[in-house]
Amino acid sequence: LRIVLLSGGSGKRLWPLSNGIRSKVFLKLLGSEDGGKESMIQRVCRQLAMAGLLSSTTIVTSDSQVEITQSHVGAAIPIISEPCKRGTFTAIALAAAYFHSRLKLDETETICVLPADLFVETAFFHQLNQLPAVLADPGTQLALIGASPLKPSSQYGYIVPQIEPGAKIYRVARFIEKPDEAAALRLIAQGALWNCGIFAFSLKFLLDCLLKKGLPAVYEQLLERYEALPEISFDHEVVEKTAGRVVIPYGGTWNDLGSWEALTGHFASPVIGRGRITADSHNTHLVNELPLPVHVIDVPDVIVAASAEGILVAGKSKANLIKDQLPEERLSMFEEASWGTSRVLDYSPSDEPGRPVSVTRKLELLPGKAVARHMQRQRKGLWTVLAGTGIFTLEGQSRPVQAGDILQIPGGASHGIEAVTALQLIEVQIDSGSRPGEERN
Amino acid sequence: LRIVLLSGGSGKRLWPLSNGIRSKVFLKLLGSEDGGKESMIQRVCRQLAMAGLLSSTTIVTSDSQVEITQSHVGAAIPIISEPCKRGTFTAIALAAAYFHSRLKLDETETICVLPADLFVETAFFHQLNQLPAVLADPGTQLALIGASPLKPSSQYGYIVPQIEPGAKIYRVARFIEKPDEAAALRLIAQGALWNCGIFAFSLKFLLDCLLKKGLPAVYEQLLERYEALPEISFDHEVVEKTAGRVVIPYGGTWNDLGSWEALTGHFASPVIGRGRITADSHNTHLVNELPLPVHVIDVPDVIVAASAEGILVAGKSKANLIKDQLPEERLSMFEEASWGTSRVLDYSPSDEPGRPVSVTRKLELLPGKAVARHMQRQRKGLWTVLAGTGIFTLEGQSRPVQAGDILQIPGGASHGIEAVTALQLIEVQIDSGSRPGEERN
Repeated sequence: LRIVLLSGGSGKRLWPLSNGIRSKVFLKLLGSEDGGKESMIQRVCRQLAMAGLLSSTTIVTSDSQVEITQSHVGAAIPIISEPCKRGTFTAIALAAAYFHSRLKLDETETICVLPADLFVETAFFHQLNQLPAVLADPGTQLALIGASPLKPSSQYGYIVPQIEPGAKIYRVARFIEKPDEAAALRLIAQGALWNCGIFAFSLKFLLDCLLKKGLPAVYEQLLERYEALPEISFDHEVVEKTAGRVVIPYGGTWNDLGSWEALTGHFASPVIGRGRITADSHNTHLVNELPLPVHVIDVPDVIVAASAEGILVAGKSKANLIKDQLPEERLSMFEEASWGTSRVLDYSPSDEPGRPVSVTRKLELLPGKAVARHMQRQRKGLWTVLAGTGIFTLEGQSRPVQAGDILQIPGGASHGIEAVTALQLIEVQIDSGSRPGEERN
Repeated sequence: LRIVLLSGGSGKRLWPLSNGIRSKVFLKLLGSEDGGKESMIQRVCRQLAMAGLLSSTTIVTSDSQVEITQSHVGAAIPIISEPCKRGTFTAIALAAAYFHSRLKLDETETICVLPADLFVETAFFHQLNQLPAVLADPGTQLALIGASPLKPSSQYGYIVPQIEPGAKIYRVARFIEKPDEAAALRLIAQGALWNCGIFAFSLKFLLDCLLKKGLPAVYEQLLERYEALPEISFDHEVVEKTAGRVVIPYGGTWNDLGSWEALTGHFASPVIGRGRITADSHNTHLVNELPLPVHVIDVPDVIVAASAEGILVAGKSKANLIKDQLPEERLSMFEEASWGTSRVLDYSPSDEPGRPVSVTRKLELLPGKAVARHMQRQRKGLWTVLAGTGIFTLEGQSRPVQAGDILQIPGGASHGIEAVTALQLIEVQIDSGSRPGEERN
C-alpha cells in the first residue's frame, strides 16, 4: 500500500493567514499530542506514522511549496514536485508514473490518495490497511472512503451507495455535488456519505488511464509535458467514468477545515499569538501573527485573524464570504520557507504588479540555514543585521557578519547569507534609477 | 472675554488610537464642514472662529504637545506650554499669570476655560458672549455652563441648581460626581445639569486664589515652580470652595467624546482608513491607521480600531474596558509632530524600558519641515531614503540627498534631515556595542 498525499492547494477562505502563497495545511493552529501546536500536514503525517503508513507515504506538491513542506514534515518523506498546478488527475498521474518508472513498483500495488487537509481521527488511517484486500476483488477498480454526514451540509459532495443489508462496503450508485439542504437530507436518508476526496486503486488501473489518454507512464516524460497539460480533476476524469466503484463508510469525525468556523473548532487554544479575549466574548477565537497586541472585548462568535496580509473580523458563520472580497494580490506579504520567514513591514506601491517602488522586510533565518538571491538590475538593497551571526556572500565574496552590520547590495548582484546563529535582518529594497525631474544637483 | 482651551490630557479609553503620547483631541475622525475629516481641537477652533472668539483664545498644553497642536490649529493661536501636567487648577493658574504679568490684562477681564475635547453645537460658543455680563453681578464669582442631560448617565458629574421660576441662570446648590443611574434620574427631576468642565471668572478672582495659596502671579516665577507643585484640580480647589457660583443651562448637544461609543457616533464615515465593512454589520465602525486592509464581515455594533499600537475589536457599550487591560507602554509606536509622522515597524524588546535592542521606523516628513536628533552613544542608526529629496546634516555637515540614498549615523552623532519635497525614510537603530561572546573574529 502506497499513500499519496496531495498538498499545495491554496485559497482565500482562510485569509489573511492562508493566501495564494501559503496553503492552509501549513497553519500551525491545531492542538498537538504534546499540548503544543501543529499544522494540518503535520497532524496527518503524525497519524500516518501511528498507523505504520508514513514510511510508504509520498507527498505531491507544487515546486514553490517543497521547502515549506519539508520544514513541516522533515526531509525523510519523498516529495514529488509539480512545476505548476494541473488538477488532481494530473498530480496523481505524476505520482503513478514516478512509482512505475522510477521506483519500478509492481502494477498490483495499491495506491491510496489522501488530501493533505484531511482532518480525521487516527482510527481512519488504520482502516486504510484493508484497501488492498478490497481492491483484490476483480470487479472493483476504485475504492472510495465516505464519511457519515453530521448535518445536511450544502458545502460537500455526496456519494450515494447501493445499500445491501449486512454489507460493510457498498457499490457506488451515483455522486451528487453540493445539493441544497433539503436534497442533502433526502440523500442522507438513503445512506449517502460525504465525499472526502479519498481514492484507492491499483497502480495498473492508473497506468491504463494514462495509456487511454495518450500520456506517458515515464516520470520524466510526463514532467516534461506537465505545463502543457490541461487542468483535469480526478473526480471528473476518473471517478465519474469508472464502473467498478465501491465506497467504504467511515463513521468517525471528518472535516476539511476549509472554513474559519470549522478550523477554530480545533484551535489549540482560543488565543493564538499576542492578544486577549474577554470572558464575555463566548465562542470567539483570535489568531494573531502580527507583533501588535489585539484586544477583543465583548464580541461573541467571531474569528479575529491578523497577519501581514491584513486583518479579518468576521462572524464565524459568514467568515467564508471573505474569499469574494479580496482584490488580486500583487505582493506576498509574508513567506515561510525552510530557511525561515520573511515579512513585509512597509512598501510603496507602483504601477507594475508585484514590484513596489520600495519594500521593507524583516527576515528571520534559522541557525545553519541560508538564503541566496539575485538583485534585480534596477534595484538596490540594504540589509541591517539586527541579531545573530552569519556569513554574507556578495558576488562570490564571503565574510562573517554580526548584529549591527550594514550590508549594501548593488543592482544586479548575486548575494546571500547563511545563519550561524539565528539571524534577524531588516531588508530595504528600492528602485535605484533616478527618475526624470529627480536628478541630483 | 478671553478663552482658555485646556488641552493635552491623555488616556487609554480610545486605545489604540489615543495613548500616553497622542491625546484624543488630535484624532482626525470627525466630519468637517467641507465633507472631510477634522480633529476635536480643529472643530472647537473652527467653532470659536465662527463665534468671533478665536482671536481671543489661548491654548494651554504640555510641552510635548505644542508641535502637534500647532500642526492641527496653525501657529496663530498662542500656546502656553506646561513643562509637565499638574492638574487643571495649575494649568489655569499659569494662564492667569500669563495674562496678568505678560499681557498686562485688566483684572476685570472675564476668563472662560473650555476643555479642548468639548463637543457641542456652534450655538454654544455664541452663548459664551453673555459671560462678562453674568460675572458683572457682584455676588457672582464663578459661572459654569451645564448641559441638559440626555440620559441618567453614571459617567458624568451633575450640577444641582437652586431652581427659581422664570430665571435663565441659577445659583449652584451642590455638585454630585458620577451618581448611579437611579440617583442620576432623581437629580435630573430636580433640574440637575451635566458638568461640562467649563468655568468662567474674572482675572482678579483667580489672582486672588493664587495669592491665598501663596503662588506667584508672575508667569516666569510660576513656571519655575511648576514641577514642584502638587497636582490640583480646579473643581476641588476652586469650584467646590467658592460661594458665589451660578450655572447657565445649555440645551443643545454636549459630549466629551470620551468613549468609542460616543466618538463613533460622530465619525466622518463608518470606515476611516483601509478596509471594508459588510452591510450586515449594522452600527459597526472601523478606523484603521495601518497600511493593511481590514475586513469586517457580519459583526454588528462593534468598534474595530487599528494602529501601530495594536488592534481593538470591541462591543461599543463595553469598549471602555480597554483602559484596564493595557500594560504600561515602554515604546511609543507612533509619533505625530509638526514635521510629520513616525511609526514603529518592528522592534526587539530589551530589559531596559523604552530602549529596545533594535527598532525599525518609517518616518514621513512634510515638505519644508525638518527633524533634528542626537543618537545615543551606544547606538547606531541607518536611514534609507525611500522617496523625496532633502538636506541631510551629520555633525554639522550638510549635503543633498534623494530617494535611494543610504545615510549612516554613528553613535553619539547629532544628525537631522530637512525635507525639500515630501520625504519618506526607513530608520533602523541598533545597539552598536558588541556583547561578550559576539566579538568578531
